[in-house]
Amino acid sequence: MLLLRHCRGLTRVGLLKTQRVQLLQGAALPVAVCAGSLCARWGSSHGGHKSGQYQRSHGPNWRHALAGLLAGTGAVLAYGLHHSQTEQAATTIVQPIAPASSLPIYTQDEVTKHRSVEEGVWVTYKGSVYDITEFVSMHPGGDKILLAAGGALEPFWALYAVHSQDHVLEILSEYKVGELSAEDRLMQQSVKSTDPYSTDPERHPALRINSLKPFNAEPPPEILSDNYITPSAIFFKRNHLPVPQVDPKSYRLQVEGVPGGVSLSLSLEELKTHFPKHTVTATLQCAGNRRSEMNKVKQVKGLNWGIAAISNATWSGARLKDVLLAAGYRSEAVSEEGDVLLAYQMNGEDLPADHGYPVRVVVPGTVGARNVKWLGKIIVSEEESSSHWQQNDYKGFSPATDWDTVDFKSAPAIQELPIQSAITQPVEGAVVERSAEEVTVKGYAWSGGGREVVRVDVSLDGGRTWQVAQLQSSEKGQVPAPSPPPGRAWAWKLWELTAPLPPVVQELEIVCKAVDNSYNMQPDSVAPIWNLRGVLSNAWHRVKVTVKEDEEKQKLLSTPVVFGTCDK
Amino acid sequence: MLLLRHCRGLTRVGLLKTQRVQLLQGAALPVAVCAGSLCARWGSSHGGHKSGQYQRSHGPNWRHALAGLLAGTGAVLAYGLHHSQTEQAATTIVQPIAPASSLPIYTQDEVTKHRSVEEGVWVTYKGSVYDITEFVSMHPGGDKILLAAGGALEPFWALYAVHSQDHVLEILSEYKVGELSAEDRLMQQSVKSTDPYSTDPERHPALRINSLKPFNAEPPPEILSDNYITPSAIFFKRNHLPVPQVDPKSYRLQVEGVPGGVSLSLSLEELKTHFPKHTVTATLQCAGNRRSEMNKVKQVKGLNWGIAAISNATWSGARLKDVLLAAGYRSEAVSEEGDVLLAYQMNGEDLPADHGYPVRVVVPGTVGARNVKWLGKIIVSEEESSSHWQQNDYKGFSPATDWDTVDFKSAPAIQELPIQSAITQPVEGAVVERSAEEVTVKGYAWSGGGREVVRVDVSLDGGRTWQVAQLQSSEKGQVPAPSPPPGRAWAWKLWELTAPLPPVVQELEIVCKAVDNSYNMQPDSVAPIWNLRGVLSNAWHRVKVTVKEDEEKQKLLSTPVVFGTCDK
Repeated sequence: MLLLRHCRGLTRVGLLKTQRVQLLQGAALPVAVCAGSLCARWGSSHGGHKSGQYQRSHGPNWRHALAGLLAGTGAVLAYGLHHSQTEQAATTIVQPIAPASSLPIYTQDEVTKHRSVEEGVWVTYKGSVYDITEFVSMHPGGDKILLAAGGALEPFWALYAVHSQDHVLEILSEYKVGELSAEDRLMQQSVKSTDPYSTDPERHPALRINSLKPFNAEPPPEILSDNYITPSAIFFKRNHLPVPQVDPKSYRLQVEGVPGGVSLSLSLEELKTHFPKHTVTATLQCAGNRRSEMNKVKQVKGLNWGIAAISNATWSGARLKDVLLAAGYRSEAVSEEGDVLLAYQMNGEDLPADHGYPVRVVVPGTVGARNVKWLGKIIVSEEESSSHWQQNDYKGFSPATDWDTVDFKSAPAIQELPIQSAITQPVEGAVVERSAEEVTVKGYAWSGGGREVVRVDVSLDGGRTWQVAQLQSSEKGQVPAPSPPPGRAWAWKLWELTAPLPPVVQELEIVCKAVDNSYNMQPDSVAPIWNLRGVLSNAWHRVKVTVKEDEEKQKLLSTPVVFGTCDK
Repeated sequence: MLLLRHCRGLTRVGLLKTQRVQLLQGAALPVAVCAGSLCARWGSSHGGHKSGQYQRSHGPNWRHALAGLLAGTGAVLAYGLHHSQTEQAATTIVQPIAPASSLPIYTQDEVTKHRSVEEGVWVTYKGSVYDITEFVSMHPGGDKILLAAGGALEPFWALYAVHSQDHVLEILSEYKVGELSAEDRLMQQSVKSTDPYSTDPERHPALRINSLKPFNAEPPPEILSDNYITPSAIFFKRNHLPVPQVDPKSYRLQVEGVPGGVSLSLSLEELKTHFPKHTVTATLQCAGNRRSEMNKVKQVKGLNWGIAAISNATWSGARLKDVLLAAGYRSEAVSEEGDVLLAYQMNGEDLPADHGYPVRVVVPGTVGARNVKWLGKIIVSEEESSSHWQQNDYKGFSPATDWDTVDFKSAPAIQELPIQSAITQPVEGAVVERSAEEVTVKGYAWSGGGREVVRVDVSLDGGRTWQVAQLQSSEKGQVPAPSPPPGRAWAWKLWELTAPLPPVVQELEIVCKAVDNSYNMQPDSVAPIWNLRGVLSNAWHRVKVTVKEDEEKQKLLSTPVVFGTCDK
């Protein structure tokens, strides 16, 4: 799920040949893994699962533990149900489909045999059986539909409220092939689903929610730049599934595939005590940050992020390189400068649940999606991860590419992100008093791959003229941090410009653009970088504000002026 | 003169602490060094020069050897006169200034004592003595003026034709302080300067010359993309001075400053036989490529390059890392992937004189200016080079920065270059026949730092709609080269698109923009990235061509159409 070779920090880890390090999910552990913020959770272990092998329980068992493997992609998803008391909230508007007596009767065992496109993909829903083989390729959510193959739809639809719509049921009804046997229907009726999100942590009320279940939210721009280190509570949240409940006592981190080395199984305590604690301040950014600006050009697929799907934190943990060395990784391949962390702390405290408790990967300079949360397993591999999120999502395309023509193989996975900046203050539509005589503009700037932001230009007139902003690389009032070592500028810079209000104008179009030390610059406009997934949205950021004239002056302006008359 | 820490290939060399490797000029050798394409040449050795220490001869000796050190910058320049037969061509319009008998008489020895701002900066010109101390800071050419301190101006003015103007003499006359003694004037009169460019090599007649002396030229765009590997003869030429004449038999490459190691002095033969020969295909680009587009926005300082100050060649030589290891550099600091070359071959043959014979540095992924030609000395240093070209030129600034406000300390030296692409075919103003029904567009794309070009978008309508071009990473018709290892994409990609001619339109505005694997993209327009030195010009490239209608159709269009009349 994580190709580390492209990451600057891991270039040093990966210096040898073409070995790559993947982070994958262990199977028999009550821990979870996230490819990017795709959360995957294993339910309570029930024994009998072979480590590293995919096994699932069907029928009543899914109440206790249900895990899935995205067929063909290697991405691992799982679903755990810990609470059977409450009703399934997400499907309340879904109506049961009346059984059609003319259709054949199937047992759950017969349904369970149909779990692949080759064998047919069958699912059950409220006592009916559906052959959805033909629908798999049309599923808007992609291969994830195969998670339910051979079993019941209910627990998956509980995860994604998007299914709670009548037209979804209509589509499903087209694929009905039979009824579940009376015995198996009775078994299913005794199973009540629950809200898998009920154990999600409390969140800060300031967050602007893009989706509640799964929880995705960003801080308001105007508070984002108040702190150089973003408080964890308002650090943007990006989840694909419920937040896993991981027991720190039984947590194990698996390390496998080290050539000539050994496999490791580390407890949280061992990770904390057997390896030096290393701290890195690094900015994480979602590939979809600023997607809303692309949506204004033309609808894209994905959460409608504003400009704040980016935050900066101090991460502490074991260095990946130290763990790999302990597993017998060839030492000369591991750079002293490798900053990839197996982090167990964020801003000096235990990782919050939303950010991967107990352990996440922090790959500085690299798109959020590779900073796997709820880390379960690390596999060193010659191959790039075959996961959905590495191969078939998080890639950039031409504005000419649509869903009919897209070929995910034709583009590289997003790893390092391009130069980025945005205005956090003032916000769109704000009013600036003319009497203030000047305006203060604030924002952030960051670039991927450890490239340092070296300049931010700000315009008050839509990009016609520019002024250079002051850069800030520590909390305001503190001693500025020393320049990062070359190629290891992992943290953003905040910036600020106070400039005289231009005379006459009634509106300012404030624009910012940043430059990194490879002198890459942001593109001017959104449309030419538009892409169907709405990722990599890094055009100049524009904010329009109104200049409010003084009341005195306004009065003068609104007083009718009587012109003298003359003969001609 | 070369900061290697920023270079991807040398990140591995420089992994240790903050050690940096500089390339500097040895002193007592008949070899030369170039910071970028600033050529520096030592004349024939006259003995008595301490290695690594600056010493110059004055008075009549400059006829034989004259070397200079840019005071305060560490950049080394030298000037050798090998030909005393021909007259100095570049100063023919300069008129001698009549001696003023009221002024004091000075000997050459007295003049020679004034070689610094502290002691006063004196020069002689045609028998008169000038105290130009106050003028040093106003010299348009910067500190280079100090090269002549304590000596005669003639040999320097012979290098830079810009001095052959009456107003330069008028400025000089303001600083006159005396006359040179009769004896020393006689000595000087016996010295005839010569054209230092007379030994420059023959050049290909296809080259478009931007400046003849020193020679700077680029190939026409339409032939640039004919070959994936640019033939050496049309590879762009960038010189600051005459091309040095280096005797391969007496050539020595000095390596110094290796911590805990030894200094080396290598003959050309030793460099070729003691180290494995390594070959890298790498694109070099001048920081000023496409400067002419910035000049159209507002005048900038520098040669008016078109789009072809970029070329791609195969370079062979010893790896810098191997030479440093031989000098005792700590082995674990040197990556197996270090691709920085001490190159003695270009496209399979000895380096041409214009490209640094006998040895140049090739730092793949890094601006041309760091690919030092006529290499003399390598110094490993903790500090970034203090040379003019590292500190006070080859940096990028905001469009708001002008020569009154520029602070060169505020910007990093250009090392890795940003994503770049341009259209080589058709050229501006070309005519496309409507009957052809389609148009073929060709060009190049490249990014610095080993970032691979992953896509080129082409528009025929000024950027409103786009099509994806085919990329080419080998000679046409040959088997495509395998993908370069991550972070080591040193060579450009050529690209091509054949698209139907849009109907109706009489003009096409063809635009291209490229994307690298960090998904950095080119800015849309030139004005917002304009900078006073006209470097880093990488906005979308635009070419307008005319669509010529078929004669038949034209005839139809020009035939008057008689409309029927009606009552209303």
